[in-house]
Amino acid sequence: MRNLTQDNITQAVIARFAQTPDARLKEIMTALVQHLHAFAREVRLTEEEWFRGIDFLTRVGHITDDKRQEFILLSDTLGLSMLTIAMNNEKPAGCTESTVFGPFYVEGAPHYELGDDVAHGAPGVPCLVRGRVRGLDGEPVPGAEIHVWQADAEGKYDVQRSDLREHLARGVLQANDRGEYFFRSILAEAYPIPDDGPVGDMLKATKRHPWRPAHLHFMIKAPGYETLITHVFRNGDPYLDSDAVFGVRQSLVADWVKQPDGTYLVEYDFVLPRDRRAAR
Amino acid sequence: MRNLTQDNITQAVIARFAQTPDARLKEIMTALVQHLHAFAREVRLTEEEWFRGIDFLTRVGHITDDKRQEFILLSDTLGLSMLTIAMNNEKPAGCTESTVFGPFYVEGAPHYELGDDVAHGAPGVPCLVRGRVRGLDGEPVPGAEIHVWQADAEGKYDVQRSDLREHLARGVLQANDRGEYFFRSILAEAYPIPDDGPVGDMLKATKRHPWRPAHLHFMIKAPGYETLITHVFRNGDPYLDSDAVFGVRQSLVADWVKQPDGTYLVEYDFVLPRDRRAAR
Repeated sequence: MRNLTQDNITQAVIARFAQTPDARLKEIMTALVQHLHAFAREVRLTEEEWFRGIDFLTRVGHITDDKRQEFILLSDTLGLSMLTIAMNNEKPAGCTESTVFGPFYVEGAPHYELGDDVAHGAPGVPCLVRGRVRGLDGEPVPGAEIHVWQADAEGKYDVQRSDLREHLARGVLQANDRGEYFFRSILAEAYPIPDDGPVGDMLKATKRHPWRPAHLHFMIKAPGYETLITHVFRNGDPYLDSDAVFGVRQSLVADWVKQPDGTYLVEYDFVLPRDRRAAR
Repeated sequence: MRNLTQDNITQAVIARFAQTPDARLKEIMTALVQHLHAFAREVRLTEEEWFRGIDFLTRVGHITDDKRQEFILLSDTLGLSMLTIAMNNEKPAGCTESTVFGPFYVEGAPHYELGDDVAHGAPGVPCLVRGRVRGLDGEPVPGAEIHVWQADAEGKYDVQRSDLREHLARGVLQANDRGEYFFRSILAEAYPIPDDGPVGDMLKATKRHPWRPAHLHFMIKAPGYETLITHVFRNGDPYLDSDAVFGVRQSLVADWVKQPDGTYLVEYDFVLPRDRRAAR
């Protein structure tokens, strides 16, 4: 293990993981080293570029706190998040598709009753959201726990506001006995992902725009069913075909319909598969 | 760009980098996406594992500060640092080999005169270090700037001590007109890399030891010559064949010779290639 060269170092590093007790961890570390080294070798990474990479990751780490997750943003913008979701959420036809979780979910959002206004004062055009949660056979999923979160009319999630004292435009609701849900909120608008940090620098340097098409985030949990993490996108948004985080699925695009009083209505039904893991 | 699947998302992400003005950055981002996705695909990364990866990197970022660089430590322990160094430092035969920079170099170390004690009070057995800096044709490199840094008898670099008020066991010297250098310090001892953070967790989970064989760090700069970043290792150290960061080269191993008075002497000559970049 002396005099390692660019030709034999990869095998030497992999050999160092040979005693890993957890077989899955060993598999992951082995593949990680192989692909990381293959990347460096393919581009013939220079020492200065290596250092810039270290510096970039350091900046990603330092801007990340309990309200901003720049590593998730990086994974999202490199398509790693959506690839992981696609690999792990092959569902039976007819089920609602999954998409990226994103960096803006937070624990401890307020609970609301059906019909309440989850906007809770966030700026935006009023909007009614409603639909049903059901299983693949059409059965209602009574009492499903529905987490919803969204950006406001200015493209900001509540946690992006430094003066925040209460959660806005996010909440937890429970579907009724027929699996129905309905709540008031505000119209979703397209917004740029936070681009004042290192991920934004990467987007600018590569001439990528930071925009996400307008959407509502949903996470839906119900006993006996797989948890669904998804969005409902707003039809007609100009960024549906160039989402900065590669999250759009046509089946998740819905019409936000303007009502005579100027408010909006969107209806969307969620279809959950039975929890396949429960059978294990 | 809707309905991306695990089979076509990689090409879609790469296409998003098509407008990158800097050709080298485009090459690097393209290769990074390809290898990152290939890794995730090969191991069929689960969503939980993805999140553990995000959490690991977040912890690496949060423990990193101006005195501790956990991303470099991670790169070192995955062999990426030594691979990068090996690829970029293919030198003419006879030149001193390079090795890892490590996370403990700091700017602003004190300047010393030849013969001074750079330990400056750091605990350890006294040691005299001396040798010459020369070029490949044997010519002396007068006035070469020599940066040295090392751990003390307790295996700690000064920057690892929270109560530090002055730099210890690190300094900058200038070779004399004949390219000679000599300074007093303390005996280098084997030490574990910092293993109380996420990189230490990785080492423990994979049953890897954190030890580095005893060494002095050197960075040597001289006009007209390539900068050399290397170590001098201590012969007989039990970790020479299992360095936690893969940095040992046999040509960098020297004898630390115990003197009648109990102090040590190590002699090492550095041979620098002419700066090939100067001709560009």
